[in-house]
Amino acid sequence: MRIVLPDGSSRELPAGSTVADVAASIGAGLAKAALGGSVNGRPVDLSAPVSEGDEVSIVTAKSDGALELLRHSTAHVLAAALIDLYGDVKFGVGPAVENGFYYDVQLDRSLSSDDFARIEERMAQIVAEARPFECRVLSRDEALVLFADQPFKQELIDGLPSDETVTSYSIGAFTDLCRGPHLPDTSHVAAFKLTKIAGAYWRGDASREQLQRIYGTAFFKQRELDAYLTNLEEAEKRDHRKLGRDLGMYMMSDMAGVGLPLYLPNGARVIRTLQEWLRKELYRRGYEEVITPHIYKADVWKTSGHYDFYHDNMYFFNVNEGSDEQPRYSEYGVKPMNCPGHVMLYANQIHSYKDLPVRFFEFGTVYRHEMSGAVHGLMRARGFTQDDAHVFCREDQVVDEVVAILDLADAIMSEFGFEYEAEVSTRPEKSIGSDEMWEHAESALKKACEVRGLPYEINAGDGAFYGPKIDIKVKDAIGRMWQCSTVQVDFNLPDRFDITYRTADNGEARPFMLHRALFGSIERFLGILIEHYAGALPLWLSPVQVVVVPIADRHKDAAAKLAERLTRAGGRVEVYEQNEPMRVKIAKAQAEKIPYMVVLGDKEVESGTVSVRERFEGDLGTWDVERLAELLADAQV
Amino acid sequence: MRIVLPDGSSRELPAGSTVADVAASIGAGLAKAALGGSVNGRPVDLSAPVSEGDEVSIVTAKSDGALELLRHSTAHVLAAALIDLYGDVKFGVGPAVENGFYYDVQLDRSLSSDDFARIEERMAQIVAEARPFECRVLSRDEALVLFADQPFKQELIDGLPSDETVTSYSIGAFTDLCRGPHLPDTSHVAAFKLTKIAGAYWRGDASREQLQRIYGTAFFKQRELDAYLTNLEEAEKRDHRKLGRDLGMYMMSDMAGVGLPLYLPNGARVIRTLQEWLRKELYRRGYEEVITPHIYKADVWKTSGHYDFYHDNMYFFNVNEGSDEQPRYSEYGVKPMNCPGHVMLYANQIHSYKDLPVRFFEFGTVYRHEMSGAVHGLMRARGFTQDDAHVFCREDQVVDEVVAILDLADAIMSEFGFEYEAEVSTRPEKSIGSDEMWEHAESALKKACEVRGLPYEINAGDGAFYGPKIDIKVKDAIGRMWQCSTVQVDFNLPDRFDITYRTADNGEARPFMLHRALFGSIERFLGILIEHYAGALPLWLSPVQVVVVPIADRHKDAAAKLAERLTRAGGRVEVYEQNEPMRVKIAKAQAEKIPYMVVLGDKEVESGTVSVRERFEGDLGTWDVERLAELLADAQV
Repeated sequence: MRIVLPDGSSRELPAGSTVADVAASIGAGLAKAALGGSVNGRPVDLSAPVSEGDEVSIVTAKSDGALELLRHSTAHVLAAALIDLYGDVKFGVGPAVENGFYYDVQLDRSLSSDDFARIEERMAQIVAEARPFECRVLSRDEALVLFADQPFKQELIDGLPSDETVTSYSIGAFTDLCRGPHLPDTSHVAAFKLTKIAGAYWRGDASREQLQRIYGTAFFKQRELDAYLTNLEEAEKRDHRKLGRDLGMYMMSDMAGVGLPLYLPNGARVIRTLQEWLRKELYRRGYEEVITPHIYKADVWKTSGHYDFYHDNMYFFNVNEGSDEQPRYSEYGVKPMNCPGHVMLYANQIHSYKDLPVRFFEFGTVYRHEMSGAVHGLMRARGFTQDDAHVFCREDQVVDEVVAILDLADAIMSEFGFEYEAEVSTRPEKSIGSDEMWEHAESALKKACEVRGLPYEINAGDGAFYGPKIDIKVKDAIGRMWQCSTVQVDFNLPDRFDITYRTADNGEARPFMLHRALFGSIERFLGILIEHYAGALPLWLSPVQVVVVPIADRHKDAAAKLAERLTRAGGRVEVYEQNEPMRVKIAKAQAEKIPYMVVLGDKEVESGTVSVRERFEGDLGTWDVERLAELLADAQV
Repeated sequence: MRIVLPDGSSRELPAGSTVADVAASIGAGLAKAALGGSVNGRPVDLSAPVSEGDEVSIVTAKSDGALELLRHSTAHVLAAALIDLYGDVKFGVGPAVENGFYYDVQLDRSLSSDDFARIEERMAQIVAEARPFECRVLSRDEALVLFADQPFKQELIDGLPSDETVTSYSIGAFTDLCRGPHLPDTSHVAAFKLTKIAGAYWRGDASREQLQRIYGTAFFKQRELDAYLTNLEEAEKRDHRKLGRDLGMYMMSDMAGVGLPLYLPNGARVIRTLQEWLRKELYRRGYEEVITPHIYKADVWKTSGHYDFYHDNMYFFNVNEGSDEQPRYSEYGVKPMNCPGHVMLYANQIHSYKDLPVRFFEFGTVYRHEMSGAVHGLMRARGFTQDDAHVFCREDQVVDEVVAILDLADAIMSEFGFEYEAEVSTRPEKSIGSDEMWEHAESALKKACEVRGLPYEINAGDGAFYGPKIDIKVKDAIGRMWQCSTVQVDFNLPDRFDITYRTADNGEARPFMLHRALFGSIERFLGILIEHYAGALPLWLSPVQVVVVPIADRHKDAAAKLAERLTRAGGRVEVYEQNEPMRVKIAKAQAEKIPYMVVLGDKEVESGTVSVRERFEGDLGTWDVERLAELLADAQV
């Protein structure tokens, strides 16, 4: 029997060989490291048989998918431990998920994180026992008998066609209904941790049983687990939802609706400052601002294609265009994107080839339907504001325009100390436009990256149906990647809205259209900045830049005067007037992450100075007031 | 028989007296000036009989309602002239309307303004004949016979109950179905003019006959008519819809929908400049900016009362809050007002009596349903942005807060050279809140006007159901009044959202809530400014402030450098680089109402100067570049 390895080489093996045999035939080291395999692209157990002509690869701890294998197996170890400890446990599902795994369970007591140590201890014993994962193939009827005391598993089996077979996996006395694959035995579960517990409805249905969902994670090495947990803790401390509330940035309300943040004064300050900063940058770079409505007649969305292809993400309603007596209804839709508005503005006048490029930008608030469960603070909301722009240009201008956009993206990301990575996504299977157009556009995007000296990965086939794109992902202070900026070529809207420009020989040509957003969503970018800076935004973005603290009542007038002076310099200043001990005021300013705290006593008032405290560096000594005023003036956008 | 006059005095008259007799009994002058009257508040002909106890007043050319009487009668004169000229004319309706009258007619030829002179001539003859208006009371059946050849009048009569009587008015041979009243005779139609012609569907129904609507106006004195026509011409020249298009401010699109303007770069510039100017002013005055979503769950609108009381002006839609498999719909509404959002933001934290007033402002774009026919450019649109603010304060702070708002309104209106008038609207019949609350709030509003030295009229009973208000109307450059600013006390929302503050003795109290918008709608204010300034916005608001014109190609570099210098100073600058004659460039800059045009030739480039031309004053001679830069820097908001 001959099988094929990932490098294309082939290998002779006796009939009846398993994936483990393939690994052993390659080398003793690989045999030892092997945790599972894949046959013709399908993940399998190490004990799975291979057949003539199969493409076989071996999964080790370093392979893609190894963590998923590990975590799925750890979920079984958790389940076995729960049975050992609590006896009568009914199991829901227990999959590997991003960053870990969970198991949904029903039992007659309510678990809490206080129980984790005991459960983890039992799990460690099961790991130490190195119980093999044993797979059995069962008919549907055999499975129904085997899982007679597991109503949720029964329900899953009931849902299968009657001639279907299922598999079970056992570790010792514990057997679970499971598709697999799994590790060879439990000893490979080296480093694990239970992380949290939450409620979850069976099958996500609020009318069904509520189960307890126990989350955990697992790694192949203890130090990887430790690093992950430290990072998790750090990420929790930086969670923009908590900091956003503590810093008075925004609020959410059940009454208002899911994914619809309301911005408090501090949040509005930061958003407006980000916008004003970008607006200046954009005017400097030859963009012009436009403003378009939040609702349009469905005609617009039918012309743009959103009505057909984006309908489920949009909100539509009917408007009576007639009178009360003779109603005549038109359908309208809330905008999920700003593009059609910009295209209509372009089409409003005749453009000569000499006028191009036309660059329109808008801070456009859009509404897109997201499932309630998918919504997450500012990171994924139903309403958000794009720093959206559309560039209409000639074919020969595309590279320069993309270079200019990448240059702007660099200016923005560098301002916040973000490193970033680029990805060029190319033509997908289902797409519109000619080969030439795609070829030209893809090579323009790559060329632009090269001109800017920006390395990029190719994301083959991941472009939009209407054109290729560059995505930029930034790395935050704790190493997490966030997708922010995107530059897309659009072959679709110029055709659909039939926009043109006058060529040099008085003909008509179709302009190229580039979409781009750099922050992406301004509110989401605010969320990323809050997590990146752990709430301590840079001076120029801080909603309050300086807090002035008069030492005694007799210094209050001087404090008001100082605040007035600093405000005039462009600073955002607050005075702490309450009669509280100094340490309370310092703690408050620290908690609010205010960059500077200046104290005014007799000495300072007399000499026109202030005693300055910086949020990270602490006491900076005595400064002349004008020095502080200048610092604030320089920090103005 | 005893009747009562408007001054409360009474007068004896013989039985069978008419309104004319009442006038004659008062004096010969009044008898001559009398055109009609009112009996117990109902307008009547001069020939109408009066009865014992009637309250009777005499209408002269100076009375309220006299113009309406005149114009309605002029419509009959028009109709009589049309019959004389064209024979077979079918009449629709012919009412007095604001600023004039119209008559809807069907005839077998299409009229145009070219026909006006001939029609007016015939009308003048009828006027000269001093034909009396003769009224007849008819049964429904008599009327059907009399108007047998007038199908539209027949239809109107058919719509009446069979026992109803109707009236007809005749001037000479021409008889019209009409409720009246009318002038004594046609000689009083002193100064009239036909103004335009348009199509109109019978009964406003697009499925019915299309009639020709002839518009006209009439005054008692020729010089009043002349002034009106001059003003009309001036208003037409200033029409913001025409100027808005010519100056690249905004566009409308049938595809986008009725009343939903899209702002082109120039319009967006002005809107953003107005906002930035006001934002700075507001921060200086202790306001804080907030940002709230454009859509909320219906729960919000039910709590606020908009769902019940403003439903027909709102746009509602359903959102699936569940999954595709288990949909669960919630109703949402697009916001027509920003108040509920600001109340929720206030309610987000606990407020002490020491923290009040809390002043939230937002440039909040709202959507309100208007009938398509009512929409008018930027003046009345379905989507617009309020410069909205809400002040939450203690009872003892209301007067000071209203004074501060009036002070701000004055700062704004003075900036544009607007004179303005104030009106205090008091408790309407249907309203909520106690007598004490209304008493306190109304006197606080009046007191605030008095503190500011602002005279006000009382608009009795015209307050909102939830509280009294001050409205401010501004007078534009050609004397038209525009309602802009409003300050309202709201007793409703604080109760409905149950918002409170902590009192000094640790109890809870309900804050007072003030709504206020000063521009009103920013886009509408832009429309008013365009008409007020006839498009030539002040330097600081002009979308392009300076146009730089190089005389020859060799001056282009210097022009670019100059533009760069002026932009750095904060100016908005354009360079005219096209090879066009100087007079074309001057004409273009004038048409675009650009404040300054600076010309660069050899002499200027050598000496670092510019030759400056101002849009109104023309040539200003040679300026140092820095002088211009300073001017622009000073004009920055």
